[in-house]
Amino acid sequence: MADRLKVGVLGATGLVGQRFIQLLHDHPWFQLEVISASAEKAGMKYSEATRWIWSTPLPSSVADMRLCKLSPEKFKGLDIVFSALPSQIAGGFEEKLAKMGLTVVSNASPMRLEDDIPLVNPEINPEHLKLLEVQRRTRGWKGVIVKNPNCTTAILTLSLKPLLDEFGLKRVRVATMQALSGAGYRGVYSMDIMDNIIPFIKNEEDKVRDETRKILGSLKGERVKWLDIGVSATCCRVPVLEGHLEAVFVELEEKPSDLSEVIKVLETFEGLPQKLKLPTAPDKPIIVRSEVDRPQPRLDRMAYRGMAVTVGRIRWDEATENGLKYLVLGSNTIRGAAGAAVLIAELMKAKGII
Amino acid sequence: MADRLKVGVLGATGLVGQRFIQLLHDHPWFQLEVISASAEKAGMKYSEATRWIWSTPLPSSVADMRLCKLSPEKFKGLDIVFSALPSQIAGGFEEKLAKMGLTVVSNASPMRLEDDIPLVNPEINPEHLKLLEVQRRTRGWKGVIVKNPNCTTAILTLSLKPLLDEFGLKRVRVATMQALSGAGYRGVYSMDIMDNIIPFIKNEEDKVRDETRKILGSLKGERVKWLDIGVSATCCRVPVLEGHLEAVFVELEEKPSDLSEVIKVLETFEGLPQKLKLPTAPDKPIIVRSEVDRPQPRLDRMAYRGMAVTVGRIRWDEATENGLKYLVLGSNTIRGAAGAAVLIAELMKAKGII
Amino acid sequence: MADRLKVGVLGATGLVGQRFIQLLHDHPWFQLEVISASAEKAGMKYSEATRWIWSTPLPSSVADMRLCKLSPEKFKGLDIVFSALPSQIAGGFEEKLAKMGLTVVSNASPMRLEDDIPLVNPEINPEHLKLLEVQRRTRGWKGVIVKNPNCTTAILTLSLKPLLDEFGLKRVRVATMQALSGAGYRGVYSMDIMDNIIPFIKNEEDKVRDETRKILGSLKGERVKWLDIGVSATCCRVPVLEGHLEAVFVELEEKPSDLSEVIKVLETFEGLPQKLKLPTAPDKPIIVRSEVDRPQPRLDRMAYRGMAVTVGRIRWDEATENGLKYLVLGSNTIRGAAGAAVLIAELMKAKGII
Amino acid sequence: MADRLKVGVLGATGLVGQRFIQLLHDHPWFQLEVISASAEKAGMKYSEATRWIWSTPLPSSVADMRLCKLSPEKFKGLDIVFSALPSQIAGGFEEKLAKMGLTVVSNASPMRLEDDIPLVNPEINPEHLKLLEVQRRTRGWKGVIVKNPNCTTAILTLSLKPLLDEFGLKRVRVATMQALSGAGYRGVYSMDIMDNIIPFIKNEEDKVRDETRKILGSLKGERVKWLDIGVSATCCRVPVLEGHLEAVFVELEEKPSDLSEVIKVLETFEGLPQKLKLPTAPDKPIIVRSEVDRPQPRLDRMAYRGMAVTVGRIRWDEATENGLKYLVLGSNTIRGAAGAAVLIAELMKAKGII
Repeated sequence: MADRLKVGVLGATGLVGQRFIQLLHDHPWFQLEVISASAEKAGMKYSEATRWIWSTPLPSSVADMRLCKLSPEKFKGLDIVFSALPSQIAGGFEEKLAKMGLTVVSNASPMRLEDDIPLVNPEINPEHLKLLEVQRRTRGWKGVIVKNPNCTTAILTLSLKPLLDEFGLKRVRVATMQALSGAGYRGVYSMDIMDNIIPFIKNEEDKVRDETRKILGSLKGERVKWLDIGVSATCCRVPVLEGHLEAVFVELEEKPSDLSEVIKVLETFEGLPQKLKLPTAPDKPIIVRSEVDRPQPRLDRMAYRGMAVTVGRIRWDEATENGLKYLVLGSNTIRGAAGAAVLIAELMKAKGII
Repeated sequence: MADRLKVGVLGATGLVGQRFIQLLHDHPWFQLEVISASAEKAGMKYSEATRWIWSTPLPSSVADMRLCKLSPEKFKGLDIVFSALPSQIAGGFEEKLAKMGLTVVSNASPMRLEDDIPLVNPEINPEHLKLLEVQRRTRGWKGVIVKNPNCTTAILTLSLKPLLDEFGLKRVRVATMQALSGAGYRGVYSMDIMDNIIPFIKNEEDKVRDETRKILGSLKGERVKWLDIGVSATCCRVPVLEGHLEAVFVELEEKPSDLSEVIKVLETFEGLPQKLKLPTAPDKPIIVRSEVDRPQPRLDRMAYRGMAVTVGRIRWDEATENGLKYLVLGSNTIRGAAGAAVLIAELMKAKGII
Repeated sequence: MADRLKVGVLGATGLVGQRFIQLLHDHPWFQLEVISASAEKAGMKYSEATRWIWSTPLPSSVADMRLCKLSPEKFKGLDIVFSALPSQIAGGFEEKLAKMGLTVVSNASPMRLEDDIPLVNPEINPEHLKLLEVQRRTRGWKGVIVKNPNCTTAILTLSLKPLLDEFGLKRVRVATMQALSGAGYRGVYSMDIMDNIIPFIKNEEDKVRDETRKILGSLKGERVKWLDIGVSATCCRVPVLEGHLEAVFVELEEKPSDLSEVIKVLETFEGLPQKLKLPTAPDKPIIVRSEVDRPQPRLDRMAYRGMAVTVGRIRWDEATENGLKYLVLGSNTIRGAAGAAVLIAELMKAKGII
Repeated sequence: MADRLKVGVLGATGLVGQRFIQLLHDHPWFQLEVISASAEKAGMKYSEATRWIWSTPLPSSVADMRLCKLSPEKFKGLDIVFSALPSQIAGGFEEKLAKMGLTVVSNASPMRLEDDIPLVNPEINPEHLKLLEVQRRTRGWKGVIVKNPNCTTAILTLSLKPLLDEFGLKRVRVATMQALSGAGYRGVYSMDIMDNIIPFIKNEEDKVRDETRKILGSLKGERVKWLDIGVSATCCRVPVLEGHLEAVFVELEEKPSDLSEVIKVLETFEGLPQKLKLPTAPDKPIIVRSEVDRPQPRLDRMAYRGMAVTVGRIRWDEATENGLKYLVLGSNTIRGAAGAAVLIAELMKAKGII
């Protein structure tokens, strides 16, 4: 206990904030010390200020913690701050904390594409954390900022990485069916989505395109050379509470000998988090289901506590020679947000960066 | 009234059968004379035997009509029989009726790909009806069988046809979000689909691939030369009552000058049903919505009484040079089933084939 | 056309406002002249300012009408103003219009229980309109204010009135399952209601109790003597788009001879709107369904264009001697809001009050 | 391990059967030895034969167990058999097992109301187990049959018992909003329930009335004297996956001094399972929530692993003098089915009846 790192959460009452609470309240390496929310909730108990939305109960150890407001001095003395801030206010505040010397691991979208900001999906590109040296030097900060990817991208890239390594990638097209929780608690009115689909999510398709190329890119000197492939997305909101389902069409450089080779490559994939046996790492980052009708959001979103993605229906894409198609699903608020951030922090701790 | 054609409906109590009833009970050219269902319902009143599922009331003129069983003699003397039979029993019975001299317009999937069976989406390939001469000659039937396409394909091909004509098509990928009504009244258990998506619809992806190529193909001598393009689909069932939404990625032969050219080509598209002002034809077969978040199933599925498809979010597909992406939506039970069949019959009547 | 009354709508872009547009855009007696919304929408075209939510298209004659802001001078010269204002702002503004001489028929809750304000469900208590003489005299207004009931109450009281007249009422208990549209477009977040029920609707239970007793009360001199019965409600929000379903338990003064007598009393009930054949009046205000599983919101909410309520499952309530139980359903935005208001105005016109 | 009782499950692949698997696969007192299903699944592995529907994964220790068919010899040597058989086949088979000497704890409805069959909700009427002596004697069986209540009744009676003991009960009316899982996996078609409610559940209202009176009744000599109160229910199916919500109106013999007294009586209620600290017993059988909008199915159904019911919105019922109204919610497949049965078996073991 004594040597656990002290951590805080920004935006602790929102849906992703609640996931941070679930992951951190009894974390073996991290001690949750500070939780913050918007000014009007400052001073309130967490249980009073939060509309807890998940079926598992609000952790009792956090229920009586008091929320503080977003002012930098509240976070002094912490080792890590996890950010679930809305994008409009995230950028400035996270920078202040980094200047103060804190390690900020952030789910907020601003800065994700900047050259010296590591955008990390822990099983895929842990080496991008080396950018932090550049970041510190260039910006003159005592602390650092690391970003986890957009939810859709986090899930997608996990399925793409083994294919890239083994067969090479040329083009990726993806049509997404994204859960309500991805829009936040107030994000989608029921009158809009009952018996309906909304085929639009603001900025999402650009994020998928750009973040995918950066995450799958390789570190060249002091920056990441984005992967030179075409990525194109169509993003839809569907009446599902949690779990993004993505229909993926990929064109490979080389054709696999058969589909069982593809399955094997995906199933056996492991990253550094698995090798290091990080506390939040799933045993296997990718589960391949052989049933004809999987993955399904309600049944598969909590695989390995929401940290694994599930792939199914791997078939040839008849439209192209080296084409492959499949579906991939993951928990957007865990694997695609808070869980990825916590896994990044564990990775940094394990590698001695924090 | 006197010279209206006498028509019957096979499978009148199912969801597509109910749509036939809605379209035919007060049709200006057709007089509904015979309705049939499975043996255990024979003799019952339509209103007693049917679990009517649509919000508009069961037409009162049909409520007291008696259902007859599936025996050929019941259909003697009719001009047209519309079939909404389940695929397992459709083939044989429809052939019997055709032998007897009836014109069968069928929504059932068997035979759709056979060389002498016209598979017709009325705005797209009315000329394929010429196959009927071959069919009559080869099979020695007095009557004929015509098929309307699978629901997903009917909607998809309507959006593809103008693009094919103007820019040429190379490849089509589509991820579908299909409504519950497409599976029939008993097709999807609520325990499977609430807060969920099922990423599998039996045989659907093959139908989309093959039927699309046949419908967009051209009549060469005595058969249709299928369009030589790659078509690849991923089909999902979503918790929406009615209206299939399809995320389409197309590679064109030639790049349009700009997106407004694409919009114009789609919006101004017309087929023979529009030129002939057929009773069931939509004023415009394709509606293009300019809002960022359309088409939506609940809001757009009943456009022009369910007979038009709605296209939205037309963008370049960044993954390829001549790539385009968009969403298209249509009523699966009207445009994608009963409505297409009735429109085929109207076309045949207008052209003197019946 | 020349002698149609000029009407306006307050709060025209909300869900109930949209229903007013549907009912008034082609009304035989009323000419829609002015539509208004909140200040930031003033000057915009109706089609641009409105998130149209219903499946039937936005009426084209209204699409290009400009919204005006809520200032009294905009409504000068009108005969009737229908109000779908939010309750916080309704009271003051409606009074201003009444002072100016306008007839205000309002769906907003403030003032409903005041002694000189007629709260009218047209088939039940048209005679309460006589309170308008008192209102004019007491308040010194040139115009008047009439209120239609809360949605739940409008539907409930329609089913209670024939029972009261025939058998007498002692106590009414009701558990409601209320649709999302009753809360307005932004009223219920999808994260709250998917796979869920919210057993609370602010102030609703008090409204049902008090308004029911006032509507069923009798005019004594210059005020309404509320019906002296116990009324108790539990109100829940359910994941249904439209149509309030209510499980009713009543204790009668006298026991009906059998249930068929109850059915007859309900089915044959008629009010003044039916006798006067008012344009918006349903042929029958109460439909009794004999199927074991009706009424159902999706199938029955649009009965007689949403103006009739549907009663089903009429049984004895085994808990008491003279107990009866049944379910009643109606369109909350039509019968329970805009439709009731329009019907009141038609009644006033037919009786020469306007 | 050695002295754990050997148990089996009848109907192990259905929704309630799956709950039995969840509760029994790692039970401290019971060893799961035999699982059975319908003949066509006999011999299959559990994981192959089961459409697992819950979000938590199918227990790995059961995945490879083979299903056996429903023949009595398969169950020889077991101590307890839990039955989740469909009611049409339950009666006869359960009797055979009881004759053979087995203890059958059954969720199936047949026989529940017979005089010598204990119908037990463990916190309420454990003393009814004394009927087993009568049962054995009268029927001449070596084994016994015990029944747990219908799901709705199990939840309702738990909330009624403390009120009965403290204030006396006169009448109970309840309107239920019941989850899809209560109808079984194939019980409700999605086309029927999306955007809808079905206000009918076959036989349910009679079960609630009769079982409530029997469970709350008192043992007089060799039979249970049913509680002499009026009970009346209206039962509806709502689009919620799991968790029955019930709006209850009760008339008490004596009026509580205030509502806080009612809350205290409910909150402090304990039964024998709590005193004996049975493994499956919830710490508290009744949770009272003070928020205005609880209980809610999605948030409260898993309270104490689905074994507690949650009560909220306790108010006076204004329709009567001693009236009280509130909502109660519980997991229909756990507290209302498999969990109640397992708790009964634990109680019997703890009391030395098995």
